[in-house]
Amino acid sequence: MLLKSNIKDLKNILKADNVLSHEEECYCYAEDAGNFRASYKTPDVVVFVETTEDVQKVVRYAYQHNIPIVCRGAGTNTVGACICEEGGIVLNFSKMNKILEFSPDDMTMKVQAGAVLGEIKKVAESEGLYYPPDPSNFKVSTIGGSIAQSSGGAKSFKYGTTKDYILGLTVVLADGNIMKIGAGTIKDAAGYHLSQLIVGSEGTLAIVVEAELKLIPKPEASAVITAYFDDTQKAVSAVNSIIKSRVFPSTIDFMDKNSINTVEKFYPCGLDTEKECVLIIETEGFKISMEHQVQLISKALADAGASGIDCAYDEKQKESLWTARRSSYAATAKLAPDVITDDIIVPRSKLAGMVDGIQSICKEYGLQACIVGHIGDGNLHPQIALNMESDEEFKNCMEAKAKMYALVSSLGGALSAEHGIGIEKRAYVEKFLDKYSLEYMRRIKKLFDPTGILNPNKIFKI
Amino acid sequence: MLLKSNIKDLKNILKADNVLSHEEECYCYAEDAGNFRASYKTPDVVVFVETTEDVQKVVRYAYQHNIPIVCRGAGTNTVGACICEEGGIVLNFSKMNKILEFSPDDMTMKVQAGAVLGEIKKVAESEGLYYPPDPSNFKVSTIGGSIAQSSGGAKSFKYGTTKDYILGLTVVLADGNIMKIGAGTIKDAAGYHLSQLIVGSEGTLAIVVEAELKLIPKPEASAVITAYFDDTQKAVSAVNSIIKSRVFPSTIDFMDKNSINTVEKFYPCGLDTEKECVLIIETEGFKISMEHQVQLISKALADAGASGIDCAYDEKQKESLWTARRSSYAATAKLAPDVITDDIIVPRSKLAGMVDGIQSICKEYGLQACIVGHIGDGNLHPQIALNMESDEEFKNCMEAKAKMYALVSSLGGALSAEHGIGIEKRAYVEKFLDKYSLEYMRRIKKLFDPTGILNPNKIFKI
Repeated sequence: MLLKSNIKDLKNILKADNVLSHEEECYCYAEDAGNFRASYKTPDVVVFVETTEDVQKVVRYAYQHNIPIVCRGAGTNTVGACICEEGGIVLNFSKMNKILEFSPDDMTMKVQAGAVLGEIKKVAESEGLYYPPDPSNFKVSTIGGSIAQSSGGAKSFKYGTTKDYILGLTVVLADGNIMKIGAGTIKDAAGYHLSQLIVGSEGTLAIVVEAELKLIPKPEASAVITAYFDDTQKAVSAVNSIIKSRVFPSTIDFMDKNSINTVEKFYPCGLDTEKECVLIIETEGFKISMEHQVQLISKALADAGASGIDCAYDEKQKESLWTARRSSYAATAKLAPDVITDDIIVPRSKLAGMVDGIQSICKEYGLQACIVGHIGDGNLHPQIALNMESDEEFKNCMEAKAKMYALVSSLGGALSAEHGIGIEKRAYVEKFLDKYSLEYMRRIKKLFDPTGILNPNKIFKI
Repeated sequence: MLLKSNIKDLKNILKADNVLSHEEECYCYAEDAGNFRASYKTPDVVVFVETTEDVQKVVRYAYQHNIPIVCRGAGTNTVGACICEEGGIVLNFSKMNKILEFSPDDMTMKVQAGAVLGEIKKVAESEGLYYPPDPSNFKVSTIGGSIAQSSGGAKSFKYGTTKDYILGLTVVLADGNIMKIGAGTIKDAAGYHLSQLIVGSEGTLAIVVEAELKLIPKPEASAVITAYFDDTQKAVSAVNSIIKSRVFPSTIDFMDKNSINTVEKFYPCGLDTEKECVLIIETEGFKISMEHQVQLISKALADAGASGIDCAYDEKQKESLWTARRSSYAATAKLAPDVITDDIIVPRSKLAGMVDGIQSICKEYGLQACIVGHIGDGNLHPQIALNMESDEEFKNCMEAKAKMYALVSSLGGALSAEHGIGIEKRAYVEKFLDKYSLEYMRRIKKLFDPTGILNPNKIFKI
């Protein structure tokens, strides 16, 4: 709990109207897009930073007074990475959202941590360039959050994740000093890759204030193909056949039968509810190659036993094919008062077993689960509908998750692919990470944040 | 200097014939592909490891007896990263070169550190897959060396560097413990990216014994285009125009006038020696898009003022267009007894200024320099021909390099793009890296290697 004098000091350090300290003002910064009500604590104070110097001043003050700092962009993460468990300061980056430099000829862009992904993409595209990472919340989520959580998205299959587009970072260290990492050039082999260590560290090592991004030329055309299967393993085989035909789609997404049925129930769009799963594939490239790519993909799908293969080239048609996949979370949310989404990944060859496993585990616990995901990567997002106020349902859900993670582990998978650990999964970190790997992460945490003020106890308990 | 008893112990720990200790045997492991004769010290002992357990045993012994360890793959690095300055043990990975697992359906491959890149590429391609990083020595160089030096290559422009293809690592820590990093899945957001910290750390933090690699589908076709310019800035503008036409070539390489003339003098292949520079561009994709891509690229080149635009689709023709670029080092080596190659990078918009700058600096010091490089990335490799036994020439070369680096710094570039720092550039690290950035690198070094036995004093002096 902060003292009144701390709040007064912060109001002197920043513009007074950038400091919110009434409980009702701070309350709306207590949650993120996950469901961890037991852990939420309303922050003592929410400060809006506008410059790197603002961040530096607040961090110096927090360091001197041993006050926890939790950074917040748009608050869209689902693992509790930006919620306060111990009160303290929420550092709000929504006013620090500028695109500082855009150099089309260097294919780079320098942005503040609060810059919104949708804006970054739009500005890049105005010059025919592309910032590919596309977490589903990209229209509102910030680059700072993407860097903290190592965000991916549907297009990771071809283009990789946030870490592949970070050329340099400016961070504020726990003691308030400013560290510039990397020269911002397209390649950099001068010393250790500290920027890659910061990406995915969920605000626990340092506070990112600026990032230099790599851009690539945006392909001139794309096509979306959907296809149904009566067996998940056949869908996985279809993906393998697509790759064998030397096509590299940007996205290979997946919805299981429950997802199809739930979407069709609440947002009817003509899905075939008799089928076990549907694939939604997007491929990009030159206009002249589109029909050829679609033919190769369609052939691979048909050979693997797909039915109802459909394809769209123009924006409106493509959007309509994507609607089903995009509606899955909203549709699941209509099944019960709450939805808990997850994020696991296994080698693609193990994916059908993972889908079957999640389905039977959820059945065992009487839970309604809609499974969607990026099948190309082996990455699944099971969405479990439940009433969190029912202790029994909540307990069942937690037990089901524990079983799911045990299955992920036995299939050689990872605890998170693109959402991070936050507080949601920290109890499982020891089971998934190699003993020494975790030990060195703890030591690195201690090295960067000796007093433990930076997003305390996220990823693992200190 | 190791004691005789140390050698005896090592022969007991490993098979005796995996331990070389006679000076004449060890002598050929004293050098790498750079030129640092003053620093070379013949290793006291060269041990060939065959298994992770071998590595572990040797490292434990070295840790107990405080003996420096320098890892060696093919010894092709050019910055002195694998040479002994203080004697000690050379850990030779040439027998630990197996491909352990290849899973085409997961698009992954697990290899030992001594696996040769050429072999990795060949095995991947047997299933239509692609390991894109292509340092020019890929036919002999090892994945362990690539990981240590964060290697790039001509195709980095489109496909990125080694770090973008590492999904997981097994490393032996300084005390001999084995740490497994990452699950080996295509994405992984569970905890800090330790594998990215190890990539590019030049063997100073831990010893890589196994790596899990990401593969991608190999494009079915490619074309190579060459074009001449009478002005470097025009060549750079041509690159910008190519990007604006939404083509993403895999390679955009460059040779300056001196390189053209030197190649033509020693390996005549019909180059136009009147021109200021030549671009060599490779683009990949579907056969059906090739002609279209070549047209777009050729138009951009012509619009920017190129002459002598030539194009090849079949392997033999492509090889003949690449011959000039590939011959440049060998040709430069014929100008004088020695060649010192370098590796710097600037934003592409500053590249013409950098080329001019290198040319005038070398002229000032009476040095013959052939400049080649990956112009798409802004990455140049000036190759300086000299007689290293002439103190004056050597001194001039070192002074010229210092001036070159000062220019790189003033243009916002990085000290190394893809070769690393080794011992060659460590004197400049303080000038290039942010103070805190270097300070945290030193602390991380201390954390991983408290007694300083792992490749001592590479990148920076301890």
